[in-house]
Amino acid sequence: MPVITLTTDFGASDHFVGTMKGVILGIAPRATIVDITHEIPPYDLNEGAFVIAQAWRYFPKRTIHVIVVDPGVGSARRPILAEAGGQFFIAPDNGVLSMIYDAAPQKVRVISNPKVIGKQVSRTFHGRDVFAPAAAHLAAGVPAPKFGKLITDYVRSFLLKPERIARHVWTGTVLKVDRFGNLITNLHIDDFADVKTRPIELRVGLERIHRLALTYAETAIGELFAIVGSSGYIEVAANQASAAKKLGCGSGSPVELEIFYE
Amino acid sequence: MPVITLTTDFGASDHFVGTMKGVILGIAPRATIVDITHEIPPYDLNEGAFVIAQAWRYFPKRTIHVIVVDPGVGSARRPILAEAGGQFFIAPDNGVLSMIYDAAPQKVRVISNPKVIGKQVSRTFHGRDVFAPAAAHLAAGVPAPKFGKLITDYVRSFLLKPERIARHVWTGTVLKVDRFGNLITNLHIDDFADVKTRPIELRVGLERIHRLALTYAETAIGELFAIVGSSGYIEVAANQASAAKKLGCGSGSPVELEIFYE
Amino acid sequence: MPVITLTTDFGASDHFVGTMKGVILGIAPRATIVDITHEIPPYDLNEGAFVIAQAWRYFPKRTIHVIVVDPGVGSARRPILAEAGGQFFIAPDNGVLSMIYDAAPQKVRVISNPKVIGKQVSRTFHGRDVFAPAAAHLAAGVPAPKFGKLITDYVRSFLLKPERIARHVWTGTVLKVDRFGNLITNLHIDDFADVKTRPIELRVGLERIHRLALTYAETAIGELFAIVGSSGYIEVAANQASAAKKLGCGSGSPVELEIFYE
Repeated sequence: MPVITLTTDFGASDHFVGTMKGVILGIAPRATIVDITHEIPPYDLNEGAFVIAQAWRYFPKRTIHVIVVDPGVGSARRPILAEAGGQFFIAPDNGVLSMIYDAAPQKVRVISNPKVIGKQVSRTFHGRDVFAPAAAHLAAGVPAPKFGKLITDYVRSFLLKPERIARHVWTGTVLKVDRFGNLITNLHIDDFADVKTRPIELRVGLERIHRLALTYAETAIGELFAIVGSSGYIEVAANQASAAKKLGCGSGSPVELEIFYE
Repeated sequence: MPVITLTTDFGASDHFVGTMKGVILGIAPRATIVDITHEIPPYDLNEGAFVIAQAWRYFPKRTIHVIVVDPGVGSARRPILAEAGGQFFIAPDNGVLSMIYDAAPQKVRVISNPKVIGKQVSRTFHGRDVFAPAAAHLAAGVPAPKFGKLITDYVRSFLLKPERIARHVWTGTVLKVDRFGNLITNLHIDDFADVKTRPIELRVGLERIHRLALTYAETAIGELFAIVGSSGYIEVAANQASAAKKLGCGSGSPVELEIFYE
Repeated sequence: MPVITLTTDFGASDHFVGTMKGVILGIAPRATIVDITHEIPPYDLNEGAFVIAQAWRYFPKRTIHVIVVDPGVGSARRPILAEAGGQFFIAPDNGVLSMIYDAAPQKVRVISNPKVIGKQVSRTFHGRDVFAPAAAHLAAGVPAPKFGKLITDYVRSFLLKPERIARHVWTGTVLKVDRFGNLITNLHIDDFADVKTRPIELRVGLERIHRLALTYAETAIGELFAIVGSSGYIEVAANQASAAKKLGCGSGSPVELEIFYE
């Protein structure tokens, strides 16, 4: 039973997502469909890229991930099928897979075979007419090479990476505010391992944070602190409160990290 | 593996939808359950009618669609089972299936067989006690004629249709604002094919729109324009922005279409 | 095909829930996963306890319910596996199962076998690293006794129960506001059967309600009234309107019930 996941900016209140599932089940009735989220902010490629990059590795081999964040729908941007890490990714070629490309070697094909997409393709709803049927045909057994030719000129956006601005100082940015109001920064623990052992100052909004906590439980209720999140990124959190609200910060807000050596 | 879809105004934060799924899986463990949406505004029959009418035709034959938007729960309104277009629809008899009836010839039965509904029927939660068990028994193989007698006096609401107010001028209404802030009007392209080839003026809020775009990509960011949506209705949209916010319009707002002939 | 349900405070906009499902399907590919809700307010143990207590009994025998509302994640609080009413419950040992314990005799085990949880356990996301794998291993056939030892000192919070303050007067509290703005109180009809036959006064906010309606349909649009909800609790409702908004009341608001005898 192949697994197909869906990540979109379609929200939950329209018929869009349900319609995609109808198309999939018509072609691949035994597919197991899993929603990652449909609450990507409209057209937000960076957040779409971030969310699928956090989720995909926890799925079984050969899972098919469909990502539809598609400001260019109806234009000449191509639909693509990427293979990476033993899994499949179907999306518009607009950079939304960039963090997947960073994570594992990839093969990318343009989807050009008319047999794997819908017979009628609207100009505005390729989730239903292109991406859902392509995923379903892949799940139903059409091999990847039948989808189209390998390409190398696919779009790869270089998401904001931290920048070193002094010997021990870096600027970064908030990638996403999660449900709990935690600010997920683009500072990954693998690049800043010394924050675990050295004194730090993390500057965000009008606050300067010096504590890197190991657990929420060790902090006081309402306290602001830094913590390494479940995806390895340094987050700014507040115990049982929203750090985003406390700081007035959100997606795109700048952060500055200093590590003190002696 | 039969497919059962759910469309309700129950929202996502209560136990209502999960409970309906528990009831279904207890009777039809092999059913595949798909959410269309649970974010129909409370008691909004028109939006419920619109949403299921956009989604159903993309599902496989014999799919069972359950629609629970039910302001009259606990009153004498009847539960019904409709067959149309090779699929099944289970809903209260309050007009929420009107756009299905418009789309395909239908047979409608009252659900009166006590064996296909729950043993205890509460006065307030027929989603759990009537509609979910009926759908599950149908999925599990009880034939439609066992549900109850054919009826012809089912409720059919004549949703707002455009009205001609001058030789080349029609008034219509906004049926729904979608996730992206697009205003979906009740002007269907099949009835107004000339908008594709003739100059037009679409009056909505304080604006007059003259452009019918083919794709979002051909418009400027923030520009207001008309476009034929993926369901065939003329929509008012704004490139990467909310037309609803720009215009201060929403569900029920009037629109006026003029087509210019020579 | 075992059923696994998920009830969390993770919301719908992050990758958290999708990731848990990926973990489950990697271990138990044939599991049917059902969302109860992910919209429990962050860290709200009482609402988590209430929601799962309303839903569980409608699921088939041997269903596995996963509840992750977990303010103490990363602390010493234990993960537990409870059996009650022929079903299974996997949750942190923080009282979120209290209303299940009230409903049926229970056996509770600490989950201590490292083979039934993830190989790497983060400090912040036990939904992915502990609770999802434990549920999946149970679904895949690992017997409950292999999870860990029976314990009796599990946490049981005594949720707010009505208090008698005069011969025929009780104070209670609002447990939850549902999607429709109904105030669900902790006054259960089984404890106050006389409200069906005697005159009553239910005091809430600045209003005094005397009507216990049997159905919404018998009330006037906008009218405030009491009604026995689908779970057996007395609710304060308004016909096609939000009682919560009309009264300015919410979760935790006090209510007072008087029954008049002669």
